[in-house]
Amino acid sequence: MKILLPDTMPLDPCLPDGWEAVVLDARAPIPAEHHDAEALVVWGASRAHLASAAEDLPRLRFIQSLAAGVEGILAAGFRPDVRITSGSGLHSSTVAEHALALTLALVRRLPQSLAAQQRHEWSRELGGLQPLHPEGELTTLLDARVLIWGFGEIGRTLAPLLQQLGAQVRGVARSAGERDGFEVLAQDDVAAALGETDVLIDILPADDHTAGAIDAAVLDALPDHALVVNVGRGTTVDQEALLAALREGRIGGAALDVTDPEPLPAEDPLWEAPRLILTPHAAGGRPVGADERIAHNLRALDGDGDLVHEVARD
Amino acid sequence: MKILLPDTMPLDPCLPDGWEAVVLDARAPIPAEHHDAEALVVWGASRAHLASAAEDLPRLRFIQSLAAGVEGILAAGFRPDVRITSGSGLHSSTVAEHALALTLALVRRLPQSLAAQQRHEWSRELGGLQPLHPEGELTTLLDARVLIWGFGEIGRTLAPLLQQLGAQVRGVARSAGERDGFEVLAQDDVAAALGETDVLIDILPADDHTAGAIDAAVLDALPDHALVVNVGRGTTVDQEALLAALREGRIGGAALDVTDPEPLPAEDPLWEAPRLILTPHAAGGRPVGADERIAHNLRALDGDGDLVHEVARD
Repeated sequence: MKILLPDTMPLDPCLPDGWEAVVLDARAPIPAEHHDAEALVVWGASRAHLASAAEDLPRLRFIQSLAAGVEGILAAGFRPDVRITSGSGLHSSTVAEHALALTLALVRRLPQSLAAQQRHEWSRELGGLQPLHPEGELTTLLDARVLIWGFGEIGRTLAPLLQQLGAQVRGVARSAGERDGFEVLAQDDVAAALGETDVLIDILPADDHTAGAIDAAVLDALPDHALVVNVGRGTTVDQEALLAALREGRIGGAALDVTDPEPLPAEDPLWEAPRLILTPHAAGGRPVGADERIAHNLRALDGDGDLVHEVARD
Repeated sequence: MKILLPDTMPLDPCLPDGWEAVVLDARAPIPAEHHDAEALVVWGASRAHLASAAEDLPRLRFIQSLAAGVEGILAAGFRPDVRITSGSGLHSSTVAEHALALTLALVRRLPQSLAAQQRHEWSRELGGLQPLHPEGELTTLLDARVLIWGFGEIGRTLAPLLQQLGAQVRGVARSAGERDGFEVLAQDDVAAALGETDVLIDILPADDHTAGAIDAAVLDALPDHALVVNVGRGTTVDQEALLAALREGRIGGAALDVTDPEPLPAEDPLWEAPRLILTPHAAGGRPVGADERIAHNLRALDGDGDLVHEVARD
């Protein structure tokens, strides 16, 4: 049995007996000699590659995506009996790390320090004796109220780090409850929580329910000193509303690792928004534990255990 | 009995019976009507204030510094029977937070992202699909080898955060051992560890032993991709050697919250060093838990418990 691996990252899964791996150009259609493949790993694949996989692999029965989102795979038209697993969880540590870096950069006013540095200025405003909680500004995560909107694997990795830094952390998910000891609000109850939120961290996936979730009403409901961080998907933020809120001082600052569209066009006014940090979808992009996930799911496919993060097909 | 509090931060300690608090201008000599004070809290005091306290308070028996370093107090010439406690520990959470912010900003290449943002450029180099551990560059704390030089209260607060982000953390102190589960090297064994260090975090105090500790030899011994962060004292780093190492690409980057002197003069070449983040002594500057510390030590002074962080006088 043959599994096709992408050439977009180094992979070396420990395959179960009977499987052989072939590394292929993930940007090109699949060559005829590999049309007998039964499994496919997807990472950085082009549309042509996915279209070819859907069309040319009659024996295909399993796809392992290394990305958390599988929109592209679902759109490629694979037969309904092909089982698909997402790369959910493989990006938790890297994306949580980036979310923390962005949050701390805003809180610790690093863009302001870098600007002062360019002017060769030792800013008395940014350093020296300071109040712990200055009026109208958030300058530490100690006692800060953080709301993580989209409390999945990444949120569960990030929340304890924020808590260890002294923040009070709550999550938002489809249904209310408690997860890993953190209070989780239902989506419908977010509005009431926003006025008591100092940092809003968006880790929402892109789907019909989340498009424009962070809109003008949400931004208005936040305190004027609140910080907004997005490491989810660009479509979940109304960028015009965010730009207006930053320009008018209705939020304290923002950091976006994702935008809509990507890349952000050079003429987009967001580049020049005040108190905004933009990073170019740099949070994840490097699955951690991919070999182990592939090996586990191949064994599960052969009846040894359950597939991890299988995507419902219907 | 009277305790003098500085006007440089809001304080409201719960005083033991028999004590009354008076808030005074910490930048001025002490007025005659308060020369009967028996205790003094020092935060942001001027030399004139300290000199007056040393000269004018015959009944003084206790000084609570809210700063971790007490060099200024020791230099002011208080009688040897005046007991002095440092503010060690009051800055652990804020300084550890800043050290983490600086470290993550370097690791996640935020200065490069901000520079690309100024050019309206969505950098393909900084985002998208990436190797987890690119050759010659540190882009995540996952698996990173971190050495915390000066493993006191701040280091013990910082180390678990770094570990939770996937780093392998070791400390350096005067004597070797284990502290909170972290391996601690003796100062004399640092040289051998530097070649296996990806991030060197300096939290050293200023004293005769630490002056210029991070010198050309230390910087040379680090790998070329290594990052150096200083939230200790400016005198512990040989700034000329650091500037040369940055210019010549012999270290990957650096972040300094402290310099020698402070403020850093506008004409200092360090402002323009490549891959350097400078913040203006912004890590601490806001004691956390000062009221509780003052109250505890006043009770201890009256025989109820031990003084916390008393400084040896000899």
